[in-house]
Amino acid sequence: MSTKIPVCILGATGTVGQKFVRLLASHPWFEVAAVAASSASAGRRYGDVVRWREQVELPPGIAGLTIRECAPPLPGAVAFSALDAEVAGPIEQAFAAAGAFVVTNTRTHRMEPDVPLLIPEANADHLVLIDRQRTERGWSGAILANPNCSTAALALALAPLHRAFGVEKLFVSTMQAVSGAGYPGVPSLDILGNVVPHIGGEEEKIERESRKILGVLGPAGVEPAAFPVSAHTNRVAVVDGHLETVSVGFRRRVAPEEAMAALREFRGSPCVAELPSSPNPPIELDSRADRPQPRLDLERGGGMAVTVGRVRPCPVLDLRMVLLGHNTIRGAAGQAVQIAELLVADGRLGRRP
Amino acid sequence: MSTKIPVCILGATGTVGQKFVRLLASHPWFEVAAVAASSASAGRRYGDVVRWREQVELPPGIAGLTIRECAPPLPGAVAFSALDAEVAGPIEQAFAAAGAFVVTNTRTHRMEPDVPLLIPEANADHLVLIDRQRTERGWSGAILANPNCSTAALALALAPLHRAFGVEKLFVSTMQAVSGAGYPGVPSLDILGNVVPHIGGEEEKIERESRKILGVLGPAGVEPAAFPVSAHTNRVAVVDGHLETVSVGFRRRVAPEEAMAALREFRGSPCVAELPSSPNPPIELDSRADRPQPRLDLERGGGMAVTVGRVRPCPVLDLRMVLLGHNTIRGAAGQAVQIAELLVADGRLGRRP
Amino acid sequence: MSTKIPVCILGATGTVGQKFVRLLASHPWFEVAAVAASSASAGRRYGDVVRWREQVELPPGIAGLTIRECAPPLPGAVAFSALDAEVAGPIEQAFAAAGAFVVTNTRTHRMEPDVPLLIPEANADHLVLIDRQRTERGWSGAILANPNCSTAALALALAPLHRAFGVEKLFVSTMQAVSGAGYPGVPSLDILGNVVPHIGGEEEKIERESRKILGVLGPAGVEPAAFPVSAHTNRVAVVDGHLETVSVGFRRRVAPEEAMAALREFRGSPCVAELPSSPNPPIELDSRADRPQPRLDLERGGGMAVTVGRVRPCPVLDLRMVLLGHNTIRGAAGQAVQIAELLVADGRLGRRP
Amino acid sequence: MSTKIPVCILGATGTVGQKFVRLLASHPWFEVAAVAASSASAGRRYGDVVRWREQVELPPGIAGLTIRECAPPLPGAVAFSALDAEVAGPIEQAFAAAGAFVVTNTRTHRMEPDVPLLIPEANADHLVLIDRQRTERGWSGAILANPNCSTAALALALAPLHRAFGVEKLFVSTMQAVSGAGYPGVPSLDILGNVVPHIGGEEEKIERESRKILGVLGPAGVEPAAFPVSAHTNRVAVVDGHLETVSVGFRRRVAPEEAMAALREFRGSPCVAELPSSPNPPIELDSRADRPQPRLDLERGGGMAVTVGRVRPCPVLDLRMVLLGHNTIRGAAGQAVQIAELLVADGRLGRRP
Repeated sequence: MSTKIPVCILGATGTVGQKFVRLLASHPWFEVAAVAASSASAGRRYGDVVRWREQVELPPGIAGLTIRECAPPLPGAVAFSALDAEVAGPIEQAFAAAGAFVVTNTRTHRMEPDVPLLIPEANADHLVLIDRQRTERGWSGAILANPNCSTAALALALAPLHRAFGVEKLFVSTMQAVSGAGYPGVPSLDILGNVVPHIGGEEEKIERESRKILGVLGPAGVEPAAFPVSAHTNRVAVVDGHLETVSVGFRRRVAPEEAMAALREFRGSPCVAELPSSPNPPIELDSRADRPQPRLDLERGGGMAVTVGRVRPCPVLDLRMVLLGHNTIRGAAGQAVQIAELLVADGRLGRRP
Repeated sequence: MSTKIPVCILGATGTVGQKFVRLLASHPWFEVAAVAASSASAGRRYGDVVRWREQVELPPGIAGLTIRECAPPLPGAVAFSALDAEVAGPIEQAFAAAGAFVVTNTRTHRMEPDVPLLIPEANADHLVLIDRQRTERGWSGAILANPNCSTAALALALAPLHRAFGVEKLFVSTMQAVSGAGYPGVPSLDILGNVVPHIGGEEEKIERESRKILGVLGPAGVEPAAFPVSAHTNRVAVVDGHLETVSVGFRRRVAPEEAMAALREFRGSPCVAELPSSPNPPIELDSRADRPQPRLDLERGGGMAVTVGRVRPCPVLDLRMVLLGHNTIRGAAGQAVQIAELLVADGRLGRRP
Repeated sequence: MSTKIPVCILGATGTVGQKFVRLLASHPWFEVAAVAASSASAGRRYGDVVRWREQVELPPGIAGLTIRECAPPLPGAVAFSALDAEVAGPIEQAFAAAGAFVVTNTRTHRMEPDVPLLIPEANADHLVLIDRQRTERGWSGAILANPNCSTAALALALAPLHRAFGVEKLFVSTMQAVSGAGYPGVPSLDILGNVVPHIGGEEEKIERESRKILGVLGPAGVEPAAFPVSAHTNRVAVVDGHLETVSVGFRRRVAPEEAMAALREFRGSPCVAELPSSPNPPIELDSRADRPQPRLDLERGGGMAVTVGRVRPCPVLDLRMVLLGHNTIRGAAGQAVQIAELLVADGRLGRRP
Repeated sequence: MSTKIPVCILGATGTVGQKFVRLLASHPWFEVAAVAASSASAGRRYGDVVRWREQVELPPGIAGLTIRECAPPLPGAVAFSALDAEVAGPIEQAFAAAGAFVVTNTRTHRMEPDVPLLIPEANADHLVLIDRQRTERGWSGAILANPNCSTAALALALAPLHRAFGVEKLFVSTMQAVSGAGYPGVPSLDILGNVVPHIGGEEEKIERESRKILGVLGPAGVEPAAFPVSAHTNRVAVVDGHLETVSVGFRRRVAPEEAMAALREFRGSPCVAELPSSPNPPIELDSRADRPQPRLDLERGGGMAVTVGRVRPCPVLDLRMVLLGHNTIRGAAGQAVQIAELLVADGRLGRRP
């Protein structure tokens, strides 16, 4: 008999939902006990409804599950949410009220003061916010939020630099993959042979969320980091992988070598480093002049590592660099699974199998 | 009998050379008197040698020309140079010594103090540098340089802002088309579904050339503008059109509306505005949230206009914006032709037909 | 005062509708008197509703039109229809009953026996079907159908071959552009770095429509050509332009030179050849080994010419070749306009201005 | 101490050479004892020379090897050749004369009557040709050829159909990935947003090689299959994976269900089926209407399976279908390794570790 912890997936048929299915199908600690989607799909077999887009075969055990409505109770101590922001709010709250740990990719609750916005290697200590959340909201469960996909890679790469040198100013110009917009998402007529220099709401998310992630816990919740962020976001003709050019100013002059050392040596806490989904190292430095590149470097650390290259002086701020993260793994499903693993390792969620 | 001014094209078979052929084939003032290429091609019919890549038909009059060696004398008061940087130096100098006005796309002479680096709408006054050049070098002709392709669009858009408000700091992250690398240029294995965050020498060119273009004439030549430039350059899967995200700091706080007014009202000098290749206006402002886009906005002003969009406040410097320029027209052949037109309008090159 | 013939566009905001707007904005014979779209858009300004995707600027005269409902009466002797097949049937019939010549891109009426399916250069004689249509249906107007986009290019290229040699068997494998699916149409996640070997209903359309187009008029309408057609249709990452590899068997052995002569010399009737939208020649032969190519050859004849290349023997049937047509011009709006021009030249539609 | 069989790689720095390195780095039977490349690279460290393009990390054990000249003797009972056709002939012959089994991806020796052209599942019995080859040429080694990449997938899918029903006519139109042309290979300016309907020599290879592969052993070598082949080959903007639309005529009428059963049940001989690189099954049938697709189905069977879909009647011949093969694995390095495995299983090459 399986001793794995049962989990469920909300919004299981979409792009991120499929990624959850793929990552959880052979997870050492979790097993998928239920998949849920819109009412139109509920009652039907997952394998008959899903337009499966992953390169690996749809796991047969999950293909045979009957799709459930997105309403509690569902079997599963964790509810991974890949719901649309339009509907996520009340559903996620209902699950949390009913006792589930909701780990969500949706933007809805990210900026609420009692909701931790987590990158385990960077701010696992923010997890304690859920104690306050549960008390104040009277929930037996809790909501834990995964950052926006371009923010996840950026804030992870900034974490060791902020800790060591104190970020004071930040520029970022992104080149983001179409999978970040889900399916059907970006029409091919918009992106073939083209770049679209606008992604709705994305610049605000980067500016807001990166400060919360890199903020410090205070009596009133997270005190966001104070640095201003100037984000330019662009959609490019890439399937997976967000590439970001970054210039950073620090509290003091920082040489590229110092920054590279901080990036290279960065590890999450021992507890985080041992989670099944944690890459080792979380940040990979690449010294080649033309790297990282989405197609070549995306799968490092199973899609959970962020690759940083071209660390060099910046004539305007202090340092320039390029970073790459897998937007549907580190920036979505993979890190959400890692957050749930953190709940286990922290003793909050059953016993580690 | 034609009263047009005869011109020749050096490096006429490459990507930029073909663009020269296309633009000059029906030019109101110029006519192509000779095409020159490498020794391997010399003596053969242009139409038999060129791997014509333009969407319009190869002009029959030029197809029938016999390719000449790249050595003076060649018929033509202007020699448009699309030569490789490896060989351009001595050839261009020989033509200038022999009396031709060499308008060159090659990087070789751009930063020499007596060579004007021209964007006619922005710095037509730098043209007088050639008087000094001719005197000092003892040439009856002269060399006039066209900036690097990503710099051309950027510096044109900055010109009215620098004039009005004084640029103090500049951050630019580019997404550049593959045609910028010529043919065969970028291998498809490098760019399909990918972004390459490095273009050799490009960041240095942007940083150096934009300051020279926006500099002021002084007794010792051009006094470059003093602002620091932080450039990140990237190659994307786009055929033509360089898109650039830009943040600018000015001498004083500048509201987006002020900047937009300066961009919108910008015109070159009357003399420049009336050149056949000058777009009207040179800078097109687009207020739509997701513009400019390479595939949709590239052909504005016949490929000579730069489109600017998303002018908005920058949390780190003063303003953010996005700009787009046609890299082989405004950033190469088209502007070179415009520079030659300026020579005519300025009375230095025969009579305007 | 304009003496142009007023026309209206049904479904004016979509991809093909926009192409109609672009082509008709400066048409020598027609002027756009009304644009119509769904009820949700009716009453609003065209320029405010349309998500304009053409490379040229939205014509100001049309931008200012108020969108009408898709119901007669609308001003316009011709109603160009770019309606969705789901709604086109009754609307097009209502316009025809009300006296308009409906030239439609929609599949709905194409195969009806009294509706001509026209490629003016190939089967202008089928136009007389509308006499029967009007009598039988009691309409003062009529419906004229434009073929499916991949069929239009194919049947035009086959027309001279069928006429000269008699097609007996036909293989075609297409590589079709995403614009053929409209907007938003093909999701970028489906097509980036990919090929989709299926386009719903397309193979049946090619097989059915090409036989009707190349059929002969008989007492009971068009007697379709008898040859079997085997079509394989594929969607590729191309914006515009359908490329088709074709093998044909004829009633007798045909040498490539004979076929090339027939293609090269093909012209529509003098009446058709003089229409403003008729390219001259309608079929362009290209002898280069690697042509035609969508990106390089698409705009020939203003997008109305079909380019044929690589005419060579076929080891299974008689001849192999490659052909390219512009799917939204020859395969949609451009040819629909040409059909309306034919109505004018044929004396059925007002006076040629 | 390793009991693995030592092998060497000729042309180890190119696209296919890198694929060999990747596949052999952790092979259960073979270990890379030497890597060889052009004289320009010889003597340098492999990791310093190679422009590594695989998504996985360059295996450290191979990165540290010193590149050797492409001349015998080199350590290794098998020499995997990814040499350019321009130089391959004498080098491969020299290695075979010196005692190595040369398994080559190069076209040079494929059609020689005493060289087996192998797809292990389809024609392992052709292996005996090397006995004649060794005798006649006086070699202690032998040359074994891997087919052209688009032929490999096609002939594998045809094998069970030919065996069961007898192929009489074959029509194939390919959409081939850019990796088939190596690196730098196809210029991005040629393929972005485009299709190139020509690949030099490819149609002849398909026509010739597929008949040899499906031929039968006779006293004078392989008696090629007699069916005519009409191939149209196209290059598309796909990184890896050749998609092919196919129509086949058989000796008798064949229903799609019969063909699908033959494809589904096809296995190589038991000896072949157990090779480490043999996928199980070798042909995967996909019943979804829009499959196979390169991006989604390429990795089936570790890149060694061919996926077949859309098996349906053909109005001209008997059956239509679509097939997909991984051009650098099944169509190159992967199958070459499988051929070497066959040598081991057949007792010709040391002992199976």
